[in-house]
Amino acid sequence: MDGARVSFADSTKVVGLVIGALLIALSVVMLVPVLAEIVAESGDWEAFLSSAVVTGFVGGALMLSNQTEDRDLGHRATFLVTTLGWLSLSAFSALPFAFSKVDMSYTDAFFEAMSGFTTTGSTVMVGLDATPPGLLLWRSLLQWMGGIGIIVTAVAILPFLRVGGMQLFRTESSDRTEKVLPRPGQIAVAIGEVYLLLTLLCALAYIIGGMSAFDALNHAMTTISTGGYSTHDASFGYFDSSFIHWAAIIFMVSGALPLILYVQTLRGTGETLWGDPQVRAFITMLAVTSVLMALWLAARGDYHFFEALQLTAFNVVSVVTTTGFASTDYTLWGPFAIMAFFILMFIGGCTGSTSGGLKMFRLQILALLFKSQVRQTLYPHVAQTLRYADRTVSREIVFSVALFVFVYMGSILAVSLALAAFGLDLVTALSSAVTAIANVGPGLGPVVGPAGNFSSLPDGPKIILAFAMLLGRLELLTVLVMFSKDYWER
Amino acid sequence: MDGARVSFADSTKVVGLVIGALLIALSVVMLVPVLAEIVAESGDWEAFLSSAVVTGFVGGALMLSNQTEDRDLGHRATFLVTTLGWLSLSAFSALPFAFSKVDMSYTDAFFEAMSGFTTTGSTVMVGLDATPPGLLLWRSLLQWMGGIGIIVTAVAILPFLRVGGMQLFRTESSDRTEKVLPRPGQIAVAIGEVYLLLTLLCALAYIIGGMSAFDALNHAMTTISTGGYSTHDASFGYFDSSFIHWAAIIFMVSGALPLILYVQTLRGTGETLWGDPQVRAFITMLAVTSVLMALWLAARGDYHFFEALQLTAFNVVSVVTTTGFASTDYTLWGPFAIMAFFILMFIGGCTGSTSGGLKMFRLQILALLFKSQVRQTLYPHVAQTLRYADRTVSREIVFSVALFVFVYMGSILAVSLALAAFGLDLVTALSSAVTAIANVGPGLGPVVGPAGNFSSLPDGPKIILAFAMLLGRLELLTVLVMFSKDYWER
Repeated sequence: MDGARVSFADSTKVVGLVIGALLIALSVVMLVPVLAEIVAESGDWEAFLSSAVVTGFVGGALMLSNQTEDRDLGHRATFLVTTLGWLSLSAFSALPFAFSKVDMSYTDAFFEAMSGFTTTGSTVMVGLDATPPGLLLWRSLLQWMGGIGIIVTAVAILPFLRVGGMQLFRTESSDRTEKVLPRPGQIAVAIGEVYLLLTLLCALAYIIGGMSAFDALNHAMTTISTGGYSTHDASFGYFDSSFIHWAAIIFMVSGALPLILYVQTLRGTGETLWGDPQVRAFITMLAVTSVLMALWLAARGDYHFFEALQLTAFNVVSVVTTTGFASTDYTLWGPFAIMAFFILMFIGGCTGSTSGGLKMFRLQILALLFKSQVRQTLYPHVAQTLRYADRTVSREIVFSVALFVFVYMGSILAVSLALAAFGLDLVTALSSAVTAIANVGPGLGPVVGPAGNFSSLPDGPKIILAFAMLLGRLELLTVLVMFSKDYWER
Repeated sequence: MDGARVSFADSTKVVGLVIGALLIALSVVMLVPVLAEIVAESGDWEAFLSSAVVTGFVGGALMLSNQTEDRDLGHRATFLVTTLGWLSLSAFSALPFAFSKVDMSYTDAFFEAMSGFTTTGSTVMVGLDATPPGLLLWRSLLQWMGGIGIIVTAVAILPFLRVGGMQLFRTESSDRTEKVLPRPGQIAVAIGEVYLLLTLLCALAYIIGGMSAFDALNHAMTTISTGGYSTHDASFGYFDSSFIHWAAIIFMVSGALPLILYVQTLRGTGETLWGDPQVRAFITMLAVTSVLMALWLAARGDYHFFEALQLTAFNVVSVVTTTGFASTDYTLWGPFAIMAFFILMFIGGCTGSTSGGLKMFRLQILALLFKSQVRQTLYPHVAQTLRYADRTVSREIVFSVALFVFVYMGSILAVSLALAAFGLDLVTALSSAVTAIANVGPGLGPVVGPAGNFSSLPDGPKIILAFAMLLGRLELLTVLVMFSKDYWER
């Protein structure tokens, strides 16, 4: 990771090598739906097998043509490999959609794969209930892989890139004096175990609630990854069980917490989940918002309070954790609910989790900045310091966070403008841009709302939104840095 | 201005004294429309005379009951007097509307007066062409007074309150080593002269273009103040002359430039207008946006390029300078134009002018932050400094600007939510919130768009929007500081 040691040109070989290895791994995972299709005898196994062959072939070719002794990535090349890695995994993950009997255009397939890998959950597919099981499983697998992928990226790579204030979390994984989890590799394995455990617990809960094993497995993968793909067009509206809905609420929240804290809590070292200021603020915010909205919804007279609470808790949690399941079309609750959900789409979960959006810790840093600036204004001669989770927040982190928020808002407006150029109305364009960049899933309005679907959009907006999802998933700056002149200077 | 010297309790008397004096001044200005009504014989002079009597009486009572030897305002009381001053001037400026033959509710009158004083320009009045001349003149006078009022506030008060990064401009008015304009009082007079001169030039141009003297005077006052009130329901759509439209474009831009720079340019001291980075960026942005939109509009086939350029330049300049005149209903140009105008509503003009919004210098500071953070990311071990207009931008200013942008966005979302609670749809609520906080004028959508009017909104949203205008006008933090616990602590 030391930019001085490795030249940029040398490291492009390593970039090729890494992406080749990722594609070979992807081609192996493609064999899972091959098996599912053979077991279900629905006859779409060839789509996956041919995808696996193409992906494996390209991956192998990349690896062979980029053999190099020096396996060290330079600082700059880390941006490139992160962005290109996510992009090529999505591009090749699209193949099974394009090759399958469902007959999707490659644009649609790319949108669906990117939406899967980034755990966004916007879909262009209609008739999910009649879709071959292999393809449904593939969608869930994409989100599940994307979920663990972003956590590893967020823990192991982003803090070193100093992007969006995530250097605040660098010591968690890089502080060698803490002897419990000294190396990033071990941390990744421990997080992977927690991720798997949570998924299995979630699947078990869904089965107890009455889901079929297939539905339970798929929804567990897309719940813990805060992805939001379902095997039914009606999403969770298909399931009539309160138990299932509350299980989903709990596990969506579980997936939106920093996974490293589970590891630390389980090992009894360092901070616990509830001791973390980000987790506390996040859960408090979800609870307060759900209860307030339930009171409001119950006051309108259509539901009793507990019915209302199940609906608001499910949909608020789904949007804020950036999962994107829907248990009902909340846009029918009227303008206040629509605006509330619009605002909730921006927020996001905790850093170090699978969720997207602004993230709680950034909002907290900004709230601290507000407090300290008010004091600075009132007492101009007293120096103010910012403290978060018992640490002093450096100037650099505040700058980073502030810039992130600004770039986040700017990107949303820029993507909205690009979408509007294709004729999308303001509500559709703006909510699609937010939902893509925050990796939520559904937008607002009749076209892309929770009861709608992205299939009717033209190809242009689909491609723009797919790239917006990638931009949001990689915390914007990781990608945007490469558009600066400085990046390409020697 | 030294908080240590004056106690908070002592200074409340000074607050009462200042507001009393402001109200007496206001009651004197109310005599101008009295004269206009008597000359025009339209019989509404009593509304203004009774308003002047009430306002003068309250002002006098405040002054008499708050006599004090110590005329020094404390640091904290400056926030209070700024906010209360603007609020009470608006509250009493509403009286003529409420007392007049036009028969408005006090809520409507308060909205209209606040929209005037803050130079926002949103209106609840329909049938302007048939409104008595005194009331039309009163609306224009409100904007004209509000315009010079905010410049004086921005030059003399806000930099000392350390709000929104405006301390960057403190030295311009407070640096005693620059001998040219050593004292804030002298600066205010010089700026007032420039303001008057620009207004007269603008009125002259309008008369040359064929406006009646009355229309020219009114529109000159609402152009230079970037206010946007018109004497016709069709706004500038009423005038068919290209000369008038281009004159308006030039004078709207003139009003959105830092007025102190005119003084310096005229005296040949310090920076000139074009030497200022804020002015350069602002004018370049306006030119590029207008030309690009004109090319796009001409390409759609309805207009020739120069027709299109007159339309786009007028309406882009009107929205970005936060004036709010309309020469046509640009929302009929389709989704791309609507989204473009939505984004343009956020931007605003230059600091130290009459315009609102984010303001160019904040966008420039954020652009600098982006550049420096990209470099920091690429070269982690090289310290980066930010320079703007040949000055090093301090950490405090970056914090201030970042916080401003965050509070600006947060306030827009909070106001939108409050409006949506009254049943306003997303486009109406969101665009009304932006237009109020940025002090632009028209919103978007069929209700509050450039061809619409705020009259049909319920009372709740009108009151919310009036306060949002005040919040935006006083750069948010000036008002919000008083909602913090720290402010009221001894």
